Amino acid sequence: MTAGKARGRFIAFEGGEGAGKSTQARLLAEALQARGLDIVITREPGGTAGAEALRALLLDPAYDWGPKSEALLFAAARSDHVEHLIEPALAAGKWVICDRFVDSSRAYQGGAGGIGDADVLTLHRIGSGGLLPDLTILIELHAGEAALRARARDGDAADRIGGKHADYHSAVRDRFALLADQSPDRFARIAGTGSAQDVHARIMAALTPLLDAP
Amino acid sequence: MTAGKARGRFIAFEGGEGAGKSTQARLLAEALQARGLDIVITREPGGTAGAEALRALLLDPAYDWGPKSEALLFAAARSDHVEHLIEPALAAGKWVICDRFVDSSRAYQGGAGGIGDADVLTLHRIGSGGLLPDLTILIELHAGEAALRARARDGDAADRIGGKHADYHSAVRDRFALLADQSPDRFARIAGTGSAQDVHARIMAALTPLLDAP
Repeated sequence: MTAGKARGRFIAFEGGEGAGKSTQARLLAEALQARGLDIVITREPGGTAGAEALRALLLDPAYDWGPKSEALLFAAARSDHVEHLIEPALAAGKWVICDRFVDSSRAYQGGAGGIGDADVLTLHRIGSGGLLPDLTILIELHAGEAALRARARDGDAADRIGGKHADYHSAVRDRFALLADQSPDRFARIAGTGSAQDVHARIMAALTPLLDAP
Repeated sequence: MTAGKARGRFIAFEGGEGAGKSTQARLLAEALQARGLDIVITREPGGTAGAEALRALLLDPAYDWGPKSEALLFAAARSDHVEHLIEPALAAGKWVICDRFVDSSRAYQGGAGGIGDADVLTLHRIGSGGLLPDLTILIELHAGEAALRARARDGDAADRIGGKHADYHSAVRDRFALLADQSPDRFARIAGTGSAQDVHARIMAALTPLLDAP
């Protein structure tokens, strides 16, 4: 501690709608705080004043964003978030837990109907220096269970991101699985079935290497 | 006319603050309308509902946009503008006159302190398919005259884009001149000195090739 704190760790949660990301991010933050770690919990799109303003524009049905402008707006929000919140926190030795990060853009805007994975990664390089999490926790649910949970939570309300049909969500799930397979060292694939505590226990097990590292 | 109208022409005005771009865009629109052309006059950042909302965010001092997120936001606004206004108008045979386009991003965000010209062009390829104007009219003024005009117009009010010091504006002027030298076929360099009608006459002369083309 004499020569400044070691850089913190960056953990992202990913997965489709209703997978339980927000709940698990909160449970993980509490568990790590109980171990004495300094935790910043945040989300995307959002996390800073500028990025939250962009989130509101992205979700506002008054605007007809096409796939290209949407991808640019997500990248702009992420750039602001990384510059003003994530990087300063990591540099100060804090652990950052983020509900969605660049892999959501790769799964949603990089897939069918989007701008393609290579361009999503190019935007991330330009906007955020290509920053990747130390660990990306992908919570996976079968289609039926995810839909049931999302409906139980949101009722009939559907925003621009959540309100798409089953084929779309299935394609997103497949894209996440593919990304995880491409980067097995960075991803932990976690079954989202069972109680929140069941899922949390699986996540803590997956976190062991990070917690034991110097 | 039997097999659909020919594609319209796309004319952009560029130059530093106080060069007279807006006035000249209006005078040109009137002159071309008098010739029977169907004209759309617009501006950047802005021109569509989404892009105008982004313009407001960019100019709002409540947000601390860094060079990267700023460049992404300009590209997002341009993408929306091209998709929803410029391309449909050109496809319908209209002539589009735009107060600032991608060369402003190249001069302002691509120069010193920005993200660099190559990345600005990459964002433009991803967001807007790399669309370039048929003619870019660069209105050039000496530093002293530009500053006088801007002050006369805006008083002491300074927004995030306009309120920078003389060195910055001088660097932007040099960047515009460099871009014009790199693409002499696309650019017309117009001296901004003299009356608005003097400048307009120079612009109409520069437009002759476009007006005479089939």
